[in-house]
Amino acid sequence: MENFIAYNPVHLHFGKDVVNDLGQTVRQYGTKVLLTYGRGSVKKYGYYDQVMTQLKAAGLEVFEYAGIKPNPVVEDVGKAAALGREKGVEVIVALGGGSVIDSSKIIALSMATGMDPWEIMTYKVNPQKTIPLINILTLAATGTEMNAAAVVQNHKTGKKLGFVHPLNYPKDAFLDPQYTATVPADYTAYGIVDLIAHALEAYFGEGEPPVIDRITFAIIKDAIRWAPLLMQDLANYELRANIMLDATLALNGLTMYGKKNGDWGVHTMGHELSLLYDTAHGATLSIAYPAWLKLKKEDISARIRTLGRGVFGVNTADETIQAFADFFTSIGAPVSLKEIGLDESNRQEIIEQFHKNEVSGMHHRLSRQDHVKLVELMG
Amino acid sequence: MENFIAYNPVHLHFGKDVVNDLGQTVRQYGTKVLLTYGRGSVKKYGYYDQVMTQLKAAGLEVFEYAGIKPNPVVEDVGKAAALGREKGVEVIVALGGGSVIDSSKIIALSMATGMDPWEIMTYKVNPQKTIPLINILTLAATGTEMNAAAVVQNHKTGKKLGFVHPLNYPKDAFLDPQYTATVPADYTAYGIVDLIAHALEAYFGEGEPPVIDRITFAIIKDAIRWAPLLMQDLANYELRANIMLDATLALNGLTMYGKKNGDWGVHTMGHELSLLYDTAHGATLSIAYPAWLKLKKEDISARIRTLGRGVFGVNTADETIQAFADFFTSIGAPVSLKEIGLDESNRQEIIEQFHKNEVSGMHHRLSRQDHVKLVELMG
Repeated sequence: MENFIAYNPVHLHFGKDVVNDLGQTVRQYGTKVLLTYGRGSVKKYGYYDQVMTQLKAAGLEVFEYAGIKPNPVVEDVGKAAALGREKGVEVIVALGGGSVIDSSKIIALSMATGMDPWEIMTYKVNPQKTIPLINILTLAATGTEMNAAAVVQNHKTGKKLGFVHPLNYPKDAFLDPQYTATVPADYTAYGIVDLIAHALEAYFGEGEPPVIDRITFAIIKDAIRWAPLLMQDLANYELRANIMLDATLALNGLTMYGKKNGDWGVHTMGHELSLLYDTAHGATLSIAYPAWLKLKKEDISARIRTLGRGVFGVNTADETIQAFADFFTSIGAPVSLKEIGLDESNRQEIIEQFHKNEVSGMHHRLSRQDHVKLVELMG
Repeated sequence: MENFIAYNPVHLHFGKDVVNDLGQTVRQYGTKVLLTYGRGSVKKYGYYDQVMTQLKAAGLEVFEYAGIKPNPVVEDVGKAAALGREKGVEVIVALGGGSVIDSSKIIALSMATGMDPWEIMTYKVNPQKTIPLINILTLAATGTEMNAAAVVQNHKTGKKLGFVHPLNYPKDAFLDPQYTATVPADYTAYGIVDLIAHALEAYFGEGEPPVIDRITFAIIKDAIRWAPLLMQDLANYELRANIMLDATLALNGLTMYGKKNGDWGVHTMGHELSLLYDTAHGATLSIAYPAWLKLKKEDISARIRTLGRGVFGVNTADETIQAFADFFTSIGAPVSLKEIGLDESNRQEIIEQFHKNEVSGMHHRLSRQDHVKLVELMG
């Protein structure tokens, strides 16, 4: 087994109506709050009102930054940090999915240090402090609610980057499955793809700790077990709860015990597709993962077969890849570029983008030749 | 799914030679150290020297409390706390297994507050602060290295009690499988029984979160997969590493996600047997679990069958119980009172002890009639 260090200090509050404890939780960290959220759905479905009621009842002064986009951009991070500094904010409450929470992690660092958000994201500066961050999750997908990672994009530099830092851990995460009951079918499916992709990125990293392989398969199998039922019954609490917990477990550090790194090659491809076409993150992954598995199927055949046996009870690499693709298709996630409206005329620009931003995994390096093959395999 | 709160701030350092980072880690918390350990094996096998070398190289002043017993007693806790207070100790380093680390958690609370250790254990006082605790684990078994629980016994009052408190979380846990390579066969087996019993206590608690059931089975299956190989090859690093990680995962909070409580009825029985006969903790559990499963097999037949399918691929409650008993036997752990030298003449005193200390689970309550049946089922 590879040596590892594990640490995750997030307080996870999971279940029905846990947001009732939000006010007293936030109050531990200060009275001036910056509430961050996206573009309106939290108001439409009443989550904003519930959160605001809690914050007001606790006597907190609330400033707001709204409008964070699904593929979050660094401009919003900068503006929100400036607002927070101006108002003397002491604690951030992020209400939303991955984009809102990821942005809020960098807002917190920028607010506490005065550093430029993109200089933080590109490791040009080294923040030593942050502002406490509390989140209320509205989308089961990225795992950001309980980890130290943040992904933000910058259209000026044409990059979508991830930034991992121990200061990024939220203090508290409030996960009420009811807050995900209104997520539409497509984003529900993309969230499920995303969580499975996280488990796979860990699995294909360096190191094969047996119990962690088993646990990783447990998470993937659980998601695959409940996903089709959830797609038929989107407001079902138990099904939402199962998927929400799967998503958190898939990227809270657990699947990385006993490993040197994850791979993340497929995520780097997905980020480039999002940058080029503003494609939803999960949709890029259901396209890219089968292609990557096909590319690697000779190279790491045994590892893919172990996965197939553990998750689907199949025996070959081909069957494993087909089973994942069939599953993605069954929940309505695209498995080819064609399905998102792209065709052969787009191939060259995707290949160029992969070249330019040096798309690669940490464990399984990808060459420029691989880029060409991968885009072809994405159909 | 049941609502739950999860929180575990322990820094886990896992792998070969991780103790090389001990000195700088301890130094973050202070320079006056109390080193606690047991009755000599850490000196015999060189672990004491390695730890001391690290602490000295970091320029730390080290006081020592040695002689903590395998079933730890409250007298040692009181004496060590008094020594620590006298010397102005700032941080405790516990080198050992469950007994040393559990004792050290209460030593830390008593040292920081001046409170009597048994008053802490019996919840008569409510400590609000503690001293930082760092542990170096030498036995894969109890999970205490990464959790907030401590078990200590008091022969004067005839009780062995557990005390759970957020202040009990160690700051750092150093788990080098090499430090467990010298554990003899019997205690290696008892540790494996203990970790499986922890997973089972969680499984039989209130709440049946599907992914956590799967993860619990993954941990148990992994232990059962590697245990027989380890029993034949006690110094094998990879096998020790697998079991060590299984033991930590079995009781670091993960198996309690989505649950209201664990059961812990079998552990309460085991504690009484240890009190009466000083039987090793793991040995009491391999005797008590099959008996408890037999007692409950009609009552919670479906739950036992789900376990059997998930862990052993068997279909009935009887087969499940037999499979666990056979496994315990295969690694040399006793599954009857007879095997630890007790017979029918002891039954009445065990029953009385169960009555007196109200042996019961938190989810599955045990009656006085159950006590009688259980002792009979322990053969």
